[in-house]
Amino acid sequence: MNEDYLSKDTIIAPISGLSGGSVHLIRISGTKAVEITSRFFSNSRFSRAEKNRFFYGQLVNEQNEPLDDVIVLLYRKPHSYTGEDVVEISCHGNILITEQIIELYLRQGCRLAQPGEFTKRAFMNGRIDLVQAESIASLISARSEKALKNAIQQLEGKFSLEIKEIKQDLIQSISLLELNLDFAEEDIEVIEDQQVLKLIDKIMNKIERYLNSYQQGKLLLNGVQVLITGKPNVGKSSLMNALLEKDRVLVSDIPGTTRDFVHDEIYLENVLVKFIDTAGIRISDDKLEKEGIKRAEKLFSDVDLILFLFDASQPLDDEDFYLIKKLKDFKEKVIFVGNKIDLNFLEENKQYLGERPLLKISAKNRTNIESIKNQIKKIIQKTDTQQVIISNERQYGLLKKAREELKRAKNTLTQKTGHEFVAMELREVVDLLSEITGEITNEDILNNIFANFCIGK
Amino acid sequence: MNEDYLSKDTIIAPISGLSGGSVHLIRISGTKAVEITSRFFSNSRFSRAEKNRFFYGQLVNEQNEPLDDVIVLLYRKPHSYTGEDVVEISCHGNILITEQIIELYLRQGCRLAQPGEFTKRAFMNGRIDLVQAESIASLISARSEKALKNAIQQLEGKFSLEIKEIKQDLIQSISLLELNLDFAEEDIEVIEDQQVLKLIDKIMNKIERYLNSYQQGKLLLNGVQVLITGKPNVGKSSLMNALLEKDRVLVSDIPGTTRDFVHDEIYLENVLVKFIDTAGIRISDDKLEKEGIKRAEKLFSDVDLILFLFDASQPLDDEDFYLIKKLKDFKEKVIFVGNKIDLNFLEENKQYLGERPLLKISAKNRTNIESIKNQIKKIIQKTDTQQVIISNERQYGLLKKAREELKRAKNTLTQKTGHEFVAMELREVVDLLSEITGEITNEDILNNIFANFCIGK
Repeated sequence: MNEDYLSKDTIIAPISGLSGGSVHLIRISGTKAVEITSRFFSNSRFSRAEKNRFFYGQLVNEQNEPLDDVIVLLYRKPHSYTGEDVVEISCHGNILITEQIIELYLRQGCRLAQPGEFTKRAFMNGRIDLVQAESIASLISARSEKALKNAIQQLEGKFSLEIKEIKQDLIQSISLLELNLDFAEEDIEVIEDQQVLKLIDKIMNKIERYLNSYQQGKLLLNGVQVLITGKPNVGKSSLMNALLEKDRVLVSDIPGTTRDFVHDEIYLENVLVKFIDTAGIRISDDKLEKEGIKRAEKLFSDVDLILFLFDASQPLDDEDFYLIKKLKDFKEKVIFVGNKIDLNFLEENKQYLGERPLLKISAKNRTNIESIKNQIKKIIQKTDTQQVIISNERQYGLLKKAREELKRAKNTLTQKTGHEFVAMELREVVDLLSEITGEITNEDILNNIFANFCIGK
Repeated sequence: MNEDYLSKDTIIAPISGLSGGSVHLIRISGTKAVEITSRFFSNSRFSRAEKNRFFYGQLVNEQNEPLDDVIVLLYRKPHSYTGEDVVEISCHGNILITEQIIELYLRQGCRLAQPGEFTKRAFMNGRIDLVQAESIASLISARSEKALKNAIQQLEGKFSLEIKEIKQDLIQSISLLELNLDFAEEDIEVIEDQQVLKLIDKIMNKIERYLNSYQQGKLLLNGVQVLITGKPNVGKSSLMNALLEKDRVLVSDIPGTTRDFVHDEIYLENVLVKFIDTAGIRISDDKLEKEGIKRAEKLFSDVDLILFLFDASQPLDDEDFYLIKKLKDFKEKVIFVGNKIDLNFLEENKQYLGERPLLKISAKNRTNIESIKNQIKKIIQKTDTQQVIISNERQYGLLKKAREELKRAKNTLTQKTGHEFVAMELREVVDLLSEITGEITNEDILNNIFANFCIGK
């Protein structure tokens, strides 16, 4: 994008996870990457190599003390992630080694890469547009296969292409509208209002579809949060255990998903479902603490589904009623789950539960656990598989603005205030769409975008 | 080592950490690695490539659905970690992606690698000996720079070479001893007892030095464990905070070190120091639980140093005395730390503390915190920097056996029981040393060694 940017600092960061793993990966990007590496890497073929080669050898420090036996990958610009010269070092998976190697490069004049800085450089150097950059962040944080597929499509440029096509349509209309103005005195209409209206409607439809996909997009990206609540001893932990049947090939903590109260996670329909319980929150009729209410209500409002568990073999009591009252504001996402039907099921309890679904289970005997999973699947399947799914807040915000601007342009057109104003408003839409892909941008916005990336991306 | 082994299963495993990181790394080793990859990788230059090249492209599944944009590294046998054809795939750091890729390879006839299986194949294929294999595990788990350096030396074959030299000396002596037997009737002595004794002593010295390095080796490998104990409210958390000044470039959880009670960690003299507290353990005079005692005593015996913290401004009370009594069995590693000297220091308390060091500090005012660090450094520096440091239990055990066998040979020699017995016993030593480097081994022992590796190594 600009030569100045290319010549700036050489940056370094670990790009693999530093916990576990037998290998750590370190990336160095910038003009000094190859030169510094040549000086401390034992394999002399490295510096003479063409692109896309890797080398085995020993990395030493300034005192010629061995740091590790490593594999070094060489990417010559512009054929690299950042578009700059890039060296990637694969060392043994010990943070002390990784640290020593990074410190060597820091002493030699590199600096630690900021979060997202590699991707920012890829964008600045024209390797990818902003939608693609954001799709990389989504690829890493996606918690469902659908979200993954969507992110891969966006990385390949599918959404960017659609945006580009919309822009081309708009720009053509704008030109014709402006031509209309030029020929206005001669009373020649190059484009008819009806044609422009049709185009605006078509584009509004597309944008409406993008906007409608956002709730689903977020759900697929982040996973479904299911809260299990109920008074003590109604069987919350038994239910949790019954729900958690793991059959994944790999078991690992997924970073960023482990948050307060998250008890455990399963995959349903290839979407991550996080079970949360209110065990840590004191929420009872008599001894209620303000802090406890606040935290519980935040949970009630944050999650996608609330399972209210009660003992179906006993009459509901004040503690149950207290919780039911608290959940009233969130009732569209509450499912009542009557547990312990192996003992009894009291029909009289039903009258207090309103029109929300009521599931009868026995967590102990694993009876009817599937009915709960089916309710969760319903949330996932609510979402239609549209072509492009938006899951990025920034893109969503810009699309919303574009829709407003289109409405305004439509209004201006039908009120016949003048084609120059319509053209102006459509130009505004073009600018908003250009902001989505990053053709129009500013440093503050960019920094803000990339600051949300993880280190090493 | 044997062709049969090479032709066995193609194995796959993630080799980078799966938590955090923007990149995951997957290794596939075996005859099918290249062929399967060719079928699902978009970059057609891959399969035609020579060794040590990497390629950018898209990996798809059987339905031609994109799994991810990846970098694929190609190692042609025998120039790979395992000595077999190896493919390494660097994908975006999302466990769902990693899982989908691994599942593709599993469906195509690969199987998940067992812990240490890549390294085991490297050993079986003669790429490395057993000491080198074990040094790779040490490289990954080392918690000090010295341990790292030692592991790198061992990976380079320094210890293996020394063992080899000892063996050569032994084998030569054995031959000469056996020649003595051949010429016994002619009364010609090819080698004198005195020479053999000298050699045995020399080797025993060497082995003694290895054995002596073991305590240090383990300490350097695992880090120093420091327990902070004392009754409630003597300032344990303030002391912890005062001790923890982090100035590392990278901050991360080091896997395997986070265990029960470990509060936090710092590096002193480039050695990891883990601070542990007894906060979770109920240990008080009146309400003592059996479980609590057991856990505390296990801690007392496991750690390298115990800081007993008390309030120096107050007379010691029954709770203090109870703990002091409990610590009596571990007193050689107890340091008494009198806190709150900003308030007062009661000299009378001293009489109860015996001859162990007494430090006077104020955690609140950060007074004299360095004195504690100096005590910890003493433990670290106790260790002499010898040439080869042993930190591996298996190697330690075999060296101990070798020492015993040498003693026996020396005895036999001095008692003049017969050269044939000396030769036999020295041969036993040679075998024990061969077990260290893995020239003599059996499948059970091997499996046991590699089972202790992490997955992906």
